[in-house]
Amino acid sequence: MPNDMMNAAFYRGDKQFSVEPKPVVQPEAGEVSVRIAYCGICGTDMHVFHGNMDARVGFERVIGHEMSGTIAAVGDGVTDLEIGQPVVVRPLDHCGDCPACNAGHEHVCHNLKFLGLDTDGAMQELWNVPAHTIHKLPDTIRMDHAALIEPVAVACHDVRLSRLKAGEDVLVIGGGPIGVLVAMVARDAGGNVTISEVNSHRLAIAEKLGFTTINPAETDLAEAINAATGNKGADVIFEVSGTQPGVDAMTACAATKGRIVMVAIHAQKPEVDMFRFFWRELELIGVRVYEKEDYEKAISIIVSGGVDADTVITDVSPLSDIQNAFESLDSSPTALKSLIKVTKDS
Amino acid sequence: MPNDMMNAAFYRGDKQFSVEPKPVVQPEAGEVSVRIAYCGICGTDMHVFHGNMDARVGFERVIGHEMSGTIAAVGDGVTDLEIGQPVVVRPLDHCGDCPACNAGHEHVCHNLKFLGLDTDGAMQELWNVPAHTIHKLPDTIRMDHAALIEPVAVACHDVRLSRLKAGEDVLVIGGGPIGVLVAMVARDAGGNVTISEVNSHRLAIAEKLGFTTINPAETDLAEAINAATGNKGADVIFEVSGTQPGVDAMTACAATKGRIVMVAIHAQKPEVDMFRFFWRELELIGVRVYEKEDYEKAISIIVSGGVDADTVITDVSPLSDIQNAFESLDSSPTALKSLIKVTKDS
Repeated sequence: MPNDMMNAAFYRGDKQFSVEPKPVVQPEAGEVSVRIAYCGICGTDMHVFHGNMDARVGFERVIGHEMSGTIAAVGDGVTDLEIGQPVVVRPLDHCGDCPACNAGHEHVCHNLKFLGLDTDGAMQELWNVPAHTIHKLPDTIRMDHAALIEPVAVACHDVRLSRLKAGEDVLVIGGGPIGVLVAMVARDAGGNVTISEVNSHRLAIAEKLGFTTINPAETDLAEAINAATGNKGADVIFEVSGTQPGVDAMTACAATKGRIVMVAIHAQKPEVDMFRFFWRELELIGVRVYEKEDYEKAISIIVSGGVDADTVITDVSPLSDIQNAFESLDSSPTALKSLIKVTKDS
Repeated sequence: MPNDMMNAAFYRGDKQFSVEPKPVVQPEAGEVSVRIAYCGICGTDMHVFHGNMDARVGFERVIGHEMSGTIAAVGDGVTDLEIGQPVVVRPLDHCGDCPACNAGHEHVCHNLKFLGLDTDGAMQELWNVPAHTIHKLPDTIRMDHAALIEPVAVACHDVRLSRLKAGEDVLVIGGGPIGVLVAMVARDAGGNVTISEVNSHRLAIAEKLGFTTINPAETDLAEAINAATGNKGADVIFEVSGTQPGVDAMTACAATKGRIVMVAIHAQKPEVDMFRFFWRELELIGVRVYEKEDYEKAISIIVSGGVDADTVITDVSPLSDIQNAFESLDSSPTALKSLIKVTKDS
């Protein structure tokens, strides 16, 4: 391929990706170009694959945002980044002029652009992004592990907003990819973590990761949590299942003054036990993406080994196999995180 | 009546009270006897009247807890209260040995006794209560106004837990007795308060009290709040309606990172827009009764005139007319707070 062309994976609709050459574009002022090492497949990417986000992404889009890479070029005005610097991108571009931005909550900007959905993303060899989205990585980090920083930052945000204190009892409802990351970050923060999950494969992974597990299809979850906590209940609950039984359990298992973090995205309105919110003075905390400090925390957790990256990463495929990687992840009961190795080793 | 007898109003079931003589009992060790001046009729008392709490209160119960009075006698070991001291009772008796009490949350004790429901209450001339439930009043306070301290303490608890800051935009959904008290306490704390209410009589009262009002049956509530707040939404929302439309409005009208306080008691599980909790990082705060500091705040607000007590108190009846007072309150579209004058002036 000529030097002014690179490979990119385009979402074409109908569960199809095509890997095609694309012209290399130099970064504009205030931008950097990142050579992508690895890019993970997110649950949101799987929604795109299933056609649920066609109106938002169209059929010319390069998706992907769970990435690691190195600086390949810098645009005018970018002075603090050197070529070759290992980096990750915090894929949020805010407007700077809405009520949320004005209040300092840029990550929930009313006009937020999510890079890799609303713009082209990281499933291409070179990705041009605003320089303000860059976080530097230490040279010692493994670049496959670094592709977990984005989803780990989600978990760091969720755990930070839960105000979890060391020694508190934590229940994670739903042991999928985000659930186990939340559980690992909560354990890293000192929580006594139990995972509730109905899928036997996911239960096995959670147990391999050292967590106490409960299958609520076989055991009364609230009774089990009460028995384990001296009739207190869980101090912090993460609802990651996105199901009505999960929403029922989150109130039934919460301690008095417990904090419930709504990690799952409920497209339908569930029925919620508001009486229990009154009776036990529960708190529900909505969470979305991450802020700068969550990215820095995620980098430090990946570096320290607070997240078992080798267990979480269950598959790595080259960019040329992206179609197969999505299909495999879609049908696998045991997969957690699949990575795409975007740029071949030189 | 002989000195060892007094009048008390007994709930007899089937919307009936009977006022009958009852023996005077001296306070036990650690107790005080309070001569009741006024006792307000609470929404909970109205639930008792309607027979909804028969299993809890039975048919021998003296109810009532929104009271003012003076110390009439003290039991052994009570050293800091003088006969004649004006007081109110914080009608909560905790067990001291449950997970909530152990965590310092005595007001939501797992075995909480609510005085006036689980024990006899203030609709009698002399009420014996644990001394730890007593708050002293300044001599200058009007005793009819002081009967509002309990419901004002509810509002103070709700506003405190909302973390309301001066200058924030506040929406109160539901302009009944608790709604207007919450609105007044929120205004006293510096909030810009709007009340949403469908009942024209209650709208008129809210306007008389100086609040901006919206009738959501006539005006799109979310559009109106957005228009009034530069498309931001309300920073703090109190859901006091106990209705599904109120629950829909609480998420639709909330600013990014807005705090929603669940004041209403929803016996049925409403459908809740969890997507909005995610999208705007909303927070839901369950609230129940009050703590000591809320009582002290309520006393200071009543003394300072931060609550317009004369507008809130719409009726005062002697104890002998309690049956008529409940029936009138039940049928009146304009009543806010009815007081019972329990002890005749000497």
